[in-house]
Amino acid sequence: MFAEGFSQAWEARYGSAPSQTLDELTPFLRHRCIRKYSDRPVPEETISTLVGCAQSAATSSNLQLYSIISVQDPERRERITELCDNQDQVRHAPWFLGFFADHYRIRREAERQGKGATAIDYTEFLLMACMDAALAAERMVCAAESIGLGICYIGALRNDPAGVQEFLNLPDGVFGVFGLCIGYPEEGSTAEIKPRLDQELIWFRETYDAEAQPVTYDDRMRAFYERQKMNSNVTWSMRSTRRTSEGHLTGREVLKSWLAENGMGLR
Amino acid sequence: MFAEGFSQAWEARYGSAPSQTLDELTPFLRHRCIRKYSDRPVPEETISTLVGCAQSAATSSNLQLYSIISVQDPERRERITELCDNQDQVRHAPWFLGFFADHYRIRREAERQGKGATAIDYTEFLLMACMDAALAAERMVCAAESIGLGICYIGALRNDPAGVQEFLNLPDGVFGVFGLCIGYPEEGSTAEIKPRLDQELIWFRETYDAEAQPVTYDDRMRAFYERQKMNSNVTWSMRSTRRTSEGHLTGREVLKSWLAENGMGLR
Repeated sequence: MFAEGFSQAWEARYGSAPSQTLDELTPFLRHRCIRKYSDRPVPEETISTLVGCAQSAATSSNLQLYSIISVQDPERRERITELCDNQDQVRHAPWFLGFFADHYRIRREAERQGKGATAIDYTEFLLMACMDAALAAERMVCAAESIGLGICYIGALRNDPAGVQEFLNLPDGVFGVFGLCIGYPEEGSTAEIKPRLDQELIWFRETYDAEAQPVTYDDRMRAFYERQKMNSNVTWSMRSTRRTSEGHLTGREVLKSWLAENGMGLR
Repeated sequence: MFAEGFSQAWEARYGSAPSQTLDELTPFLRHRCIRKYSDRPVPEETISTLVGCAQSAATSSNLQLYSIISVQDPERRERITELCDNQDQVRHAPWFLGFFADHYRIRREAERQGKGATAIDYTEFLLMACMDAALAAERMVCAAESIGLGICYIGALRNDPAGVQEFLNLPDGVFGVFGLCIGYPEEGSTAEIKPRLDQELIWFRETYDAEAQPVTYDDRMRAFYERQKMNSNVTWSMRSTRRTSEGHLTGREVLKSWLAENGMGLR
């Protein structure tokens, strides 16, 4: 459905022409967040294949410290939508998958062997599990997009960790890191490729450059906001700064204490 | 170079035939870790295109809380290899990229606007940044593999966070989460698709199933270890349990205190 060529996708990201064209990689440049889906169903077998792609991602020491829970029952979908900041795409997406950092499985295995699994309490293991989940999810997303599906990540799954734990019957050591909506984009979707920071701000050679500054990004984002009918008087810099102020943590202030109470990342 | 078909790749992951075949998704099933590379160079422009793919990944609230540093100078590569547990693939890979959780860029923007950016101190922002880095990296990896490149993630970049910080001139709020080796696999590579846990252990419907147990996985992994000339008397369960015992954190015990000292995840 989305058909930008390499140069067009690159220009949408960076506001300038690419120095080379690698057409095979165009699909990886075309990602956008899809919040409105068509009614076209996505068979369970397709999701199973996509889970196979997710599981094919690298995982730290092959520990596979993540799990996935799909919520498809309509009443239950309504409840998970409430838990996710009532975001409408969670309610209506053909599939909703939660991704979980999972220490439970590996701790149980250690206990079965009569071992203490004391390393799991360290922050290192929390980060490993969150990154395992993210690697798996993004491989699933790349695969899904390559067959015409659209996705939307739902960070709001972290807004109420205790509520999510209770609702999904999570044992100690399992933490919902994000949700993922999957479905075919609605007909005539106007979802757009979002501009990103200049590559010079993200990719450094040999050492970090603490002086690199975003110069054109607010302007490029302003044009994007206008096309997407968002308030373009509020720049990306202003939005980001608002997001980093204390009033906008949407419940996630509790994560450190909640995680420690649930045996994750406390050391 | 690697040419398994869909069914063959699926069977390598799960030890059983797929219930459907989606040939377009085969490349996403074929991932394996590549530790030995050919001399065939990878042009800087290709890496730039792959960084474009990485930046096309979703990022929480478009904050883009990650950075990438390539280390190509031979003497510097030797030093980063030492910092990464002396892993030989870091020394010899055509490209080595470090991935960093990055709060510096966004905090500086808030300060420029005279705001406190107090939310950044919360664990939520550490997890967001680590997951942003992982999403970006895995999109890059999927793209790289789709054009015949091979990769190896290097978690050992977390072994000595202070050493990495000093060597790469990282400002406060920048933390090396993993490295990534990239290059063409050596001719005749015997790197194999690694079996994963049964899908029933990873993907649950509606609620978590705390009773699900790995049944066949140790056997499937034993056959893999034998083919890869690894010690097959030590099962996956035993290896995992060893990895979760305190003696195997390889320096990463310090992460919580190091991160807090560097303004990340302390609240």
